[in-house]
Amino acid sequence: MKDLTIDNITDNVHIINSRCPDVRLRFLLERLVVRLHDFTRETRLSIPEWQAALEFIKQVGQVSSDVRHEFILLSDVLGLSLLVDSIDHPKPDGATGGTVLGPFHTHEAENKAAGESISADQDSNRCLWPVDGVKVDVWETDSKGFYDVQYNNRSGPDGRGVLVSDADGCFHFKAIVPVPYPIPDDGPVGKLLCKLNRHPYRPSHMHFRFHKPGFGQLITALYVRGSKYETSDAVFGVRQSLIVDITKVADEEGWADKYGVESSTALLRYDFVLLTEEESNKLREEKARDEAERQGGCELRMGFWSRSRR
Amino acid sequence: MKDLTIDNITDNVHIINSRCPDVRLRFLLERLVVRLHDFTRETRLSIPEWQAALEFIKQVGQVSSDVRHEFILLSDVLGLSLLVDSIDHPKPDGATGGTVLGPFHTHEAENKAAGESISADQDSNRCLWPVDGVKVDVWETDSKGFYDVQYNNRSGPDGRGVLVSDADGCFHFKAIVPVPYPIPDDGPVGKLLCKLNRHPYRPSHMHFRFHKPGFGQLITALYVRGSKYETSDAVFGVRQSLIVDITKVADEEGWADKYGVESSTALLRYDFVLLTEEESNKLREEKARDEAERQGGCELRMGFWSRSRR
Ligand SMILES: [Fe+2]
Ligand SMILES: [Fe+2]
Repeated sequence: MKDLTIDNITDNVHIINSRCPDVRLRFLLERLVVRLHDFTRETRLSIPEWQAALEFIKQVGQVSSDVRHEFILLSDVLGLSLLVDSIDHPKPDGATGGTVLGPFHTHEAENKAAGESISADQDSNRCLWPVDGVKVDVWETDSKGFYDVQYNNRSGPDGRGVLVSDADGCFHFKAIVPVPYPIPDDGPVGKLLCKLNRHPYRPSHMHFRFHKPGFGQLITALYVRGSKYETSDAVFGVRQSLIVDITKVADEEGWADKYGVESSTALLRYDFVLLTEEESNKLREEKARDEAERQGGCELRMGFWSRSRR
Repeated sequence: MKDLTIDNITDNVHIINSRCPDVRLRFLLERLVVRLHDFTRETRLSIPEWQAALEFIKQVGQVSSDVRHEFILLSDVLGLSLLVDSIDHPKPDGATGGTVLGPFHTHEAENKAAGESISADQDSNRCLWPVDGVKVDVWETDSKGFYDVQYNNRSGPDGRGVLVSDADGCFHFKAIVPVPYPIPDDGPVGKLLCKLNRHPYRPSHMHFRFHKPGFGQLITALYVRGSKYETSDAVFGVRQSLIVDITKVADEEGWADKYGVESSTALLRYDFVLLTEEESNKLREEKARDEAERQGGCELRMGFWSRSRR
């Protein structure tokens, strides 16, 4: 391994990495190196460009913290998050589609009783969200388009809650009508969007994450129909099937009394359809097998065997 | 742009990036997104794997500092640095080949008079390095295999110096005989090497960087013949043409007196051959044209026009 050139460096990196005992990691590294080197060759990347790229990702790392996930943001704006979610959560017709987790989920949301409000924001329209489902972690911005973690002086979680569905698989909570907001654009990812002449906005949405033993995890969001940026979401998350109409509590006979809210309150209803863990795994494995076949039929080389053992 | 799937996400990312006014940046982003998405599809990357990858590069960013360049290290161990250097500095026969800059160059090396020592390390063999050339920035580890910047308690530069060649294009300086050393392996890149069952060592070498107005910059290193790790350099830098024999000052009639060193001192001689800036640029542009032709003949699409204007 000497005198490495443009043409033989890639194979030599493979050789030196080939003693990795983890089949899956070895496969991932091999493909990563192939794609990275192909990119470098086909663009004839210059040293100043390489330096600028390293400086860029260094800055992405350095603005990152427990409450600021700039690498997730970068992955989002490159369409990578949507792609990974689509691959890892293949869906048959009828099951609720997933969407990007985004950088604003936290693990500190409080448990909420049915009907409780997840939002302390008094500046906005109140609405009622009766949701059919199983269990739900929910988060949204305040009426100004900021998540609680984006305030330096925040005292605790707001705009987030963890709910548990009732015997009918239903649950409901109070929140505020979502607004469009810009993803954080004061960091390196925001500067990149600016250079690309792209806006940083997401259409109005609310995030949901569903957990139940025996079911595949569902990370998704609901988008308000007609919201600005519906067709140009900076992070590529919108699905037709996740766009919902906002109506009024008055439209449903007796609901104002039943849920203890004014009849003028905005109302959002949605039926989430979860897959069982078995259905979810089966579908994921089928798709992985298809890809292995496309590459020449060796699942072992792709490390799926060692991957499923983890 | 809604309902994005595994199959249409890539084209949609291109569309949203297509308004970027910088042709070169637009081209780089397009190719990066293609390669990144192809990698993700062909490996059927899972969400835990994607999370682990983001966490890894976040850690790489967070251990980085002005004196610790962990992203350069990562680029080095993936063979990317060697590849970029080979692309940006194509060499005709006879010109001295380049090698990776590595993470240990600094801008604080002191100017040295001819024959001065760049190293304060008293623990090692002293040697004399008469080098034919133009101007040289030189750096090496101490005898324990550490660069000055790796010591927390360092008081200033050591093992580095900036020299200027004399009218004959010659210069010489005192230093220590290089030793093999591990690249920093206590960070995320070191952990990756460990998982890949790779050692972190570089064979014995000394770094050089040449500057002269009108000449192409040369970043290179000389490797001591027969050094351990000569054929398994962790960062892929070794070239046959850069491997040199270490002899003794006694082998050269009168040199001990001429240079004021003991005749038992180790001696390293090398003729560096620089390209003029014109030759260097011409060769780089030829290779870029070849690549544009291979991709269908549109240099403008690759942004070389805007790139050379910068
Ligand atoms: Fe959001
Ligand atoms: Fe070095």
